[in-house]
Amino acid sequence: MLIVDEARPMAGAMLDAKLRSIHAMLNPKSVAIVGATEKAGYGGNFLKNLLASGSKARHYPINPNRTEVDGTRCYPSVTDLPEAPDLVGIVLPAQLVVPTFEACVAKGAKSVLIISAGFAELGTDEGRARQERLRDIARESGVRLCGPNCLGLANVAAQSWTTPSTMISPNMHTFDTGIGLVSQSGATCYRTLLPLAEDRGIGFSSMICTGNEADLETSDFMQYMIADPGTKVIAAVIEGFKDGAKFAETADLALRAGKPIVILKVGRSEVGARGANSHTAAMTGSDTAHDALFRQKGVVRVNDYDELVEFSAMFAKAKAPRGPRIGVSSESGGISTHTADKCGELGLEVPPLSPETREKMVAIMGDRGSAANPADLTQFGVKESFEQVLDILLGEDNQDLLILSSVGGPNQAKFTIAAIENAPKPILFVWNGSARESASLPLLKNSNVPLFFAPVKAAQAARALVDYHRTRRDYMAEVASGERQFPLPPAALAAFEEIVRGGRGVALNEYASKQALSLFGVRGTREILCREVDDAIDAARSIGFPVAMKIASDDIPHKTEAGGVRLGLKDADEVARAFGEMLVAVRGHHPQARIDGVLIQEMVSDGLQLIVGVSRDAHFGPVLMLGLGGILAEAMAASSWRVCPITSREAHEMIGEVRGLSKIAAGYRGLPKADIAALVDTLVNISRLAVWAGDSVESLDINPLAVRAEGRGVVALDALLVPRVAEPASR
Amino acid sequence: MLIVDEARPMAGAMLDAKLRSIHAMLNPKSVAIVGATEKAGYGGNFLKNLLASGSKARHYPINPNRTEVDGTRCYPSVTDLPEAPDLVGIVLPAQLVVPTFEACVAKGAKSVLIISAGFAELGTDEGRARQERLRDIARESGVRLCGPNCLGLANVAAQSWTTPSTMISPNMHTFDTGIGLVSQSGATCYRTLLPLAEDRGIGFSSMICTGNEADLETSDFMQYMIADPGTKVIAAVIEGFKDGAKFAETADLALRAGKPIVILKVGRSEVGARGANSHTAAMTGSDTAHDALFRQKGVVRVNDYDELVEFSAMFAKAKAPRGPRIGVSSESGGISTHTADKCGELGLEVPPLSPETREKMVAIMGDRGSAANPADLTQFGVKESFEQVLDILLGEDNQDLLILSSVGGPNQAKFTIAAIENAPKPILFVWNGSARESASLPLLKNSNVPLFFAPVKAAQAARALVDYHRTRRDYMAEVASGERQFPLPPAALAAFEEIVRGGRGVALNEYASKQALSLFGVRGTREILCREVDDAIDAARSIGFPVAMKIASDDIPHKTEAGGVRLGLKDADEVARAFGEMLVAVRGHHPQARIDGVLIQEMVSDGLQLIVGVSRDAHFGPVLMLGLGGILAEAMAASSWRVCPITSREAHEMIGEVRGLSKIAAGYRGLPKADIAALVDTLVNISRLAVWAGDSVESLDINPLAVRAEGRGVVALDALLVPRVAEPASR
Repeated sequence: MLIVDEARPMAGAMLDAKLRSIHAMLNPKSVAIVGATEKAGYGGNFLKNLLASGSKARHYPINPNRTEVDGTRCYPSVTDLPEAPDLVGIVLPAQLVVPTFEACVAKGAKSVLIISAGFAELGTDEGRARQERLRDIARESGVRLCGPNCLGLANVAAQSWTTPSTMISPNMHTFDTGIGLVSQSGATCYRTLLPLAEDRGIGFSSMICTGNEADLETSDFMQYMIADPGTKVIAAVIEGFKDGAKFAETADLALRAGKPIVILKVGRSEVGARGANSHTAAMTGSDTAHDALFRQKGVVRVNDYDELVEFSAMFAKAKAPRGPRIGVSSESGGISTHTADKCGELGLEVPPLSPETREKMVAIMGDRGSAANPADLTQFGVKESFEQVLDILLGEDNQDLLILSSVGGPNQAKFTIAAIENAPKPILFVWNGSARESASLPLLKNSNVPLFFAPVKAAQAARALVDYHRTRRDYMAEVASGERQFPLPPAALAAFEEIVRGGRGVALNEYASKQALSLFGVRGTREILCREVDDAIDAARSIGFPVAMKIASDDIPHKTEAGGVRLGLKDADEVARAFGEMLVAVRGHHPQARIDGVLIQEMVSDGLQLIVGVSRDAHFGPVLMLGLGGILAEAMAASSWRVCPITSREAHEMIGEVRGLSKIAAGYRGLPKADIAALVDTLVNISRLAVWAGDSVESLDINPLAVRAEGRGVVALDALLVPRVAEPASR
Repeated sequence: MLIVDEARPMAGAMLDAKLRSIHAMLNPKSVAIVGATEKAGYGGNFLKNLLASGSKARHYPINPNRTEVDGTRCYPSVTDLPEAPDLVGIVLPAQLVVPTFEACVAKGAKSVLIISAGFAELGTDEGRARQERLRDIARESGVRLCGPNCLGLANVAAQSWTTPSTMISPNMHTFDTGIGLVSQSGATCYRTLLPLAEDRGIGFSSMICTGNEADLETSDFMQYMIADPGTKVIAAVIEGFKDGAKFAETADLALRAGKPIVILKVGRSEVGARGANSHTAAMTGSDTAHDALFRQKGVVRVNDYDELVEFSAMFAKAKAPRGPRIGVSSESGGISTHTADKCGELGLEVPPLSPETREKMVAIMGDRGSAANPADLTQFGVKESFEQVLDILLGEDNQDLLILSSVGGPNQAKFTIAAIENAPKPILFVWNGSARESASLPLLKNSNVPLFFAPVKAAQAARALVDYHRTRRDYMAEVASGERQFPLPPAALAAFEEIVRGGRGVALNEYASKQALSLFGVRGTREILCREVDDAIDAARSIGFPVAMKIASDDIPHKTEAGGVRLGLKDADEVARAFGEMLVAVRGHHPQARIDGVLIQEMVSDGLQLIVGVSRDAHFGPVLMLGLGGILAEAMAASSWRVCPITSREAHEMIGEVRGLSKIAAGYRGLPKADIAALVDTLVNISRLAVWAGDSVESLDINPLAVRAEGRGVVALDALLVPRVAEPASR
């Protein structure tokens, strides 16, 4: 499945049905619980939690061995219920789940939640088969399913808690910061994130544990949250996406809707991937491709539980900053300097104060502290005068975001809370004192002030806020200007695919690869394919000495190793000699290879040598790589990645991300300035080609691509296109 | 001042006097407070805090305008005191401080603490002069001084709180985890670190705010803590060291004593350095050199306040791990996977469980959860069975450190606390639940279990613990084997300095630079200095074609730019032609240069090209740099730094830190394996040379240094030595 950057209109009716089913799941008027008991444990807690949450849903315990549970009438089976329930929660041994699900479908239930474990996570054929059966029933019937092997759902605003978690208690969680939480791990959701959020005065609007995702997956619930007016921010804990393309579409929808996705994803290391695979059936996938997609779609990746909670709340509360210029202020010079240092370390600007602002502050502070950025307010940061000082700082035009890094005192809290609604820029507050403080901290927690508990976290959050809003602004401008529409050039594509089909080996030879690329505006070296030595000499004369000579054969992808490359041939004699030697050498290495001839090629010795590649990611389809050329650079692993297609802005970003490249391209140490505009066009073109020809191209390498001096363009010196082999018929 | 790696025996008597003065400051039997009042403010709080802390010291308020303060008899001046006090605290306007200090000296006081601001931090000449006067009095009299512009001291074990901080209250801080805290920022100490530590059940043994450090500086107090049996770990908040060499010696002492220094240092970015300079008189200095020294001396650098507190407590509590193999366990698969992922990301090993351990766990858990590493214990992580499971995990030989990443339940806390004393490896506990939990968390806080509140922090702490103990083991082994003794070779040094003195320009020419280096075992290219074209041709014949030709002149440090380099001259004709052309070109660029001739040099075209350099750091003296050669690598800024001298182990570390180098040197993509042993020797030799010749060498660059194939050694292809110019006579 291809990823296209323009969100495809989702299949209307299907989508509506899915969201309706999720809506019923989260706002049920009637809930049946199969496996309800009065004992401690999942079957007992599910009912207790539902009742304790204040839910007004009609509730039906189901248990053939009881006539009532905790005073509520109990039904022997789903079939016996007096109505078709909006939601059926199933807490049964695994082998009983499938027939029960079938009974739910027969009864006309709207949605099903399966708590039971014993499916794909076991790693057994039986478990997988059982899970596939659940998926098939859900897809065929339209009765959508959350789970199995999950801890359930909560809709906080609707007071509907349909979860067997033992970690929640009545009235413990009644506030709502507008954060929808989706987590593949149930314990992370109820045991960790919920209490961490509550400690900070942060509330989720909904909490959804998706477990094994036999049917509905993370992206489906995110789509619901995008449509849900009560959700401002989507927080997610992910080991891996079942369907990468679906997540890419969902992230695109979220970016357009202006609902940030804040995500904690396992899989930074192989260890994590190993753990995740043993733990659930999810695939963690390539972390590089995930990071690329996240960056492109404005998805905010965080590193830990506290960050997930605090960053999500900040996105729900904070205005959009105009740019990356940060003001830092504290009543302690030591604290403001440390906070500013962390901002600087993350590449944020901390510009000096304007003379006007400085003057106004000195008028209040005299020679005490430091009227600067970072500011050291001393006592003026805690006294009544803070109201005035804050007003001055908020009026500073050179700052796009203000970080107050403080230890409190009620004046700070009071004046910050009063100012935040009408402030012309976002304010982040870092609380550097005790978490048990009771005079100011509760005020801040209960307010619309984004709150952090460590300067580093606030600096990182400021970076994320700045980046998200810049990405979104740029992205929406591209949408408006039509830059994100990638119309297909049918003629070029047809010609391209003909060349690809013409290949006889695993890979196209260099000549054919470059011919194919040239159809999409990627210029290769001037070159002539020759079969005889005399042709080669003529070709070299017409191209001009010195020339390069390379073997042309679909059967020899690694030409250098086979003795099939000679560079810098200076005259006809050298060409003639090299021609003979090369054929002998190549035959020695590849006696069976079909040789199409030799390529006589212009020598390009100028320009900066880069590598551009396209490969297929299992989750997100074609991804584009840009790196510096040469063995050294390759060993240093300096590269940048994006999911295809990209815009020219994204191409510029890639160039900026390759360590050292911008510096060299700008004319480092007497090198000429490189033709960045041509490089950008080439990257954009290749990324589009990768999408258009996604079904016929497995991978593509231009190595090296020479970026010549400004105005002289880029040249593919070598290229290797590997056609995609059709999937085996069995799939 | 040179840094030598062997700690110099400190000047005995001087040192003892200093430590005795600090001891009196921290354990005073009598305290006078000049500027004591009954009003709120520093003068009033100082006395109140002292009394509230339970100090048994005789206390003397001093204030000429009062006969008593809060019921205590008040003296008009220091001179009038009935005894010479151990400590005098001064809380007066700046202009009164110097005469008061003089009176203290006259009275025979043992130590002085100056709270008052109005000194070097003002940035005025007057402020600086006042501060210098304080330093001079202290140094001349031996009455040592803490401050000015500081928030005082606290010795928790001795119940002696001599601080005017408004943030402390009686009995708020009575426990002691064995952490000595030194902070240049007073607010950071009392307003932030103290409450953060108390929230976590962590106590400091002493808290010292050093302020402007007119006399005693951070390193002095650290030296006291190294000698103090009550201090296990030293925590520090630093904007910059006054005397880098003194800190280097102190860090060395601490490493030998096995007392980790955990440090939060501002100056990661230019913003931070700017803030620090406006805020105190301290110089933040080069962050690269600081990081190098920290790494060499096992100093643990942290990023934020919470890390300073949590990492310090861990070092006070945790055993030394044998190695980097981490076991991760949780009752939640999601949490253990996330925690393990973070360990992997930091380069820690998370090895699979041994079959025997796995078997024992399966015997308890059956097919529930995951008997693996990371482990998912499910209910077996919270029930009584946790005692057995923990015992099995602690017995796993493949793990050097165990991280329990959990949400609690009293069994976890109880069994972990019971196990920790006799456990064969350190255990770190990550609390992933609410900070307000009251059943298990207080037990853990009150125990010897190192406690963290986020998986990322625990993983980072584990990394720091592993690194510290590995560094210390390696370092002590080097001490034992004599590898850290760097005996001076007087003959070589004399010859070296003669060559250096012989230079006529800003820099020595290439020939002389290489001659000087060769005295220390760094081989250069074979080369002959020639004045006439015929000599050059003869030289080329004796060296063997092709040769390189380079201009030799002390006045032309940048030969290439001046047309003074020609490579690959193939025969006598080419040599003759190049000789003439070069002289014309060089004269064109440098008409005034004194030319010594041309250098005819062997062409070395094999080998990996590196850059090795020595420069002088303002704080730590000569520092050694290793990087990849070539413009590309330079732009990519791949390099490693160490303070000189280094051992062969440290040379290996440097090679490992240069991005890509180890990979290439190991024989990447058909390149030959590089002669790493020779490179290591060269780095060690240059680092020693840099120390021995520290007074005569400003900088040294070998660019490139060719590292040839294994067994073939290294060759300096070019070198540039810049002699050190004597300091102006005015200093």
